[in-house]
Amino acid sequence: MTWFRNLLTTSTIKSSIKSKTLINPYPKFIFTSLTHFSSESAAATTETKSPYTPTYSGLEPTKPGEKPRVVVLGTGWAASRLMKGINTDIYDVVCVSPRNHMVFTPLLASTCVGTLEFRSVAEPIGRIQPAISKAPGSYFFLANCKGVDADNHMIHCETVTESLDTLNPWKFKVSYDKLIIASGAEASTFGIHGVKDHAIFLREVAHAQEIRRKLLLNLMLSDVPGITEDEKRRLLHCVVIGGGPTGVEFSGELSDFILKDVHERYAHVKDYIHVTLIEANEILSSFDVRLRDYATKQLTKSGVRLVRGIVKDVQPQKIILNDGTEVPYGLLVWSTGVGPSSFVKATEFPKSPGGRIGVDEWLRVPSVQDVYSIGDCCGFLESTGKPVLPALAQVAERQGKYLAHLLNKIGKNGGGRANSAKDMELGGPFVYRHLGSMATVGRYKALVDLRQSKDAKGVSIAGFSSWFIWRSAYLTRVSYLNEILDRIL
Amino acid sequence: MTWFRNLLTTSTIKSSIKSKTLINPYPKFIFTSLTHFSSESAAATTETKSPYTPTYSGLEPTKPGEKPRVVVLGTGWAASRLMKGINTDIYDVVCVSPRNHMVFTPLLASTCVGTLEFRSVAEPIGRIQPAISKAPGSYFFLANCKGVDADNHMIHCETVTESLDTLNPWKFKVSYDKLIIASGAEASTFGIHGVKDHAIFLREVAHAQEIRRKLLLNLMLSDVPGITEDEKRRLLHCVVIGGGPTGVEFSGELSDFILKDVHERYAHVKDYIHVTLIEANEILSSFDVRLRDYATKQLTKSGVRLVRGIVKDVQPQKIILNDGTEVPYGLLVWSTGVGPSSFVKATEFPKSPGGRIGVDEWLRVPSVQDVYSIGDCCGFLESTGKPVLPALAQVAERQGKYLAHLLNKIGKNGGGRANSAKDMELGGPFVYRHLGSMATVGRYKALVDLRQSKDAKGVSIAGFSSWFIWRSAYLTRVSYLNEILDRIL
Repeated sequence: MTWFRNLLTTSTIKSSIKSKTLINPYPKFIFTSLTHFSSESAAATTETKSPYTPTYSGLEPTKPGEKPRVVVLGTGWAASRLMKGINTDIYDVVCVSPRNHMVFTPLLASTCVGTLEFRSVAEPIGRIQPAISKAPGSYFFLANCKGVDADNHMIHCETVTESLDTLNPWKFKVSYDKLIIASGAEASTFGIHGVKDHAIFLREVAHAQEIRRKLLLNLMLSDVPGITEDEKRRLLHCVVIGGGPTGVEFSGELSDFILKDVHERYAHVKDYIHVTLIEANEILSSFDVRLRDYATKQLTKSGVRLVRGIVKDVQPQKIILNDGTEVPYGLLVWSTGVGPSSFVKATEFPKSPGGRIGVDEWLRVPSVQDVYSIGDCCGFLESTGKPVLPALAQVAERQGKYLAHLLNKIGKNGGGRANSAKDMELGGPFVYRHLGSMATVGRYKALVDLRQSKDAKGVSIAGFSSWFIWRSAYLTRVSYLNEILDRIL
Repeated sequence: MTWFRNLLTTSTIKSSIKSKTLINPYPKFIFTSLTHFSSESAAATTETKSPYTPTYSGLEPTKPGEKPRVVVLGTGWAASRLMKGINTDIYDVVCVSPRNHMVFTPLLASTCVGTLEFRSVAEPIGRIQPAISKAPGSYFFLANCKGVDADNHMIHCETVTESLDTLNPWKFKVSYDKLIIASGAEASTFGIHGVKDHAIFLREVAHAQEIRRKLLLNLMLSDVPGITEDEKRRLLHCVVIGGGPTGVEFSGELSDFILKDVHERYAHVKDYIHVTLIEANEILSSFDVRLRDYATKQLTKSGVRLVRGIVKDVQPQKIILNDGTEVPYGLLVWSTGVGPSSFVKATEFPKSPGGRIGVDEWLRVPSVQDVYSIGDCCGFLESTGKPVLPALAQVAERQGKYLAHLLNKIGKNGGGRANSAKDMELGGPFVYRHLGSMATVGRYKALVDLRQSKDAKGVSIAGFSSWFIWRSAYLTRVSYLNEILDRIL
């Protein structure tokens, strides 16, 4: 900062305005860090072109002497595990994502009611892969990928400037040597009217914050004089749609919160607040039947009402079920699984059953060179004869780990650059072995299902010991990503 | 929860829908907690009137046998200290405020850059005065006071439902035996165009969150390929308007953040980020001249550019100074002091010089019965011969403490009820003795000015020892409100 300090009058603040525009007098040499950008970009820089005319500059193809560039789309479990494992002595890493952190999704439910801090369930990408915030050729770009030009080894991107009214998004392109699509899936709404407008999903930190804010607001509003009994009960009716692990875990956390915090801190309205979990089939359908029974018992014991029903319509203050039942709500959380994102739907790559990006057994997109896909956005092509894997963190992480090893091996053997790994021997394909499922049903109670498939026999544990395993696994993960769970699972 | 558990089918989730509306079958006895509301409210309850026709029900005047009701407007330093000190064996406490927590404003600047967690600078009102969340006649209402009907000992309120599109605000009234107006002041904009639209104040937790979000977003956007040099430098130019303690502290925190975190985590753009502090006169004008010099030296040393200037206009991406200088910015923080709020301006009470609610030496609003005012919203009437006190936490807290004692004394002597303390002997008036000023200028550096007035002689300390006093004072305050600072000051 020496150069900058020299610009300042250090003892008084008067007369430090030296030009009509405060920004211009910076010395020239700070411009140099942009020289590795493409020629278009350099042109834009010297002409000081307005950022609002979309410029199509970006990162150009890597040159001999530079490291090959791995471009990763996404910052979820798959992308994060991949970036953590990639050898940055071999590759530069460029990550393009609308989110600059990884979210420990299994702990998100706990943040809604304050059991955990928001910050403790999010890990910045720059901490998962430090090269991204420091190395000269590695970057994180807060942007969405808008299209893949696989023939030219290039992606088209647009910055995310959501909620910034003073800034228009701008476009740029990034050339890749290897592209890894790990952009995840989207919450399923099954085309039901009103879900996106009135329900809150539980996939991002912002969702958890919105749930917490709304819950506390409703608690306070329900205590205001003049409110009708019906309105009071509506405001404090928390409805969760979907009986998978997320829905069950959130319901459990919510009922814990009611039994502890609401009874203590909102004593005036404690008898008005209720949680209803609505599921079309069974809760935790992938779990062992004894674990399902245990979960059902635990949830109902702690005050969660379990309802079998199918949602037909979502209105601002009530949902309508298929049989005509109206369910007024103050808070509506939607957690009915995920499906292909609009980005995945728009790509022209062949698809797996279920509409995901189709991959072969080495997680490659087989129709093109140097494109891979991992996590919830990919599925084995029908031609592989393998089933599409479930959208689980466990699957995503194992794929990320596998692909990091594979890319490191390819790079070591001189195949890092575009179009240079065509006929390379890749070694063993990706094989997934399901090592168990875990879900918590409120504090100190959880399920661990260590069977390999729904119909197999094996170990299943319920209760405190499994809660301890569950919480340890994820909490430890927050600091030591990928260490403990690997050992447990 | 026994009654509720009985409603549930505990082993399976099927057939638990027992009526067309899930909400109705609750047993009758939970309605009983509303019986202390006014008759209008009770009527509204049984008729289940829609909440969208504004009902004017509320808390009616206290009856013989009930405790007298102290109604407090606000949850700032003054209101919180008062509520903490009020004797809830004597009084019921009803707090009306658009915010359910107290904010430790001197620590807010630290949360913008992650030095402290947001949660650690906010204290829920229910924790400051537990009766509010538990006692049958004490409440917190998330609402704004819209008017005071002093003749009838009643206030008119409207719920705060901001950003809740599914909910219309509704109105209610609250009768009081004693009313304490402690609703604070508003950030001054001096009528400058564009301030409210484009600048961020630093008075609430939400402001600090907005600053943090924008800072991190700009850091990421500035690293996207295709961005011009000018745009990059604009995005990363943080401009602070106002050289009082808040502006100085925020600038110091920001430069610490740049020197530490940005250089580490955003290395690509570290030479582009700068902080400029613009002040029309001198920074920290109420402090001793040696402390001011020390602060100036510390700030410039850590990279903050101090500029003397007057802002004429605020545009979306630049501010215009009086002399025509244009200052492009990516983040603009406005901290030029406070003035009377629109609520205070609208009340018909006599005003002090400066337009605050005028009070006598016992902090009473003298034209009416049982109305008091404390904190930034009040000032001594000209007739008292005393100067209007500065808008400081220190003043607000001392007034809150004084008034709590006064009201407790009045209550003990049988004057708690409306119109019953007219001729009561009140004892000593409120006397303010300024015990010093504190400000931090970045981590480990602070100023403590223990002089009683601007021109007096006395102790002034700068550097690490005072930073330690400053941080200890406030951090300790977070847990033990009002203990340590009382001893230090």
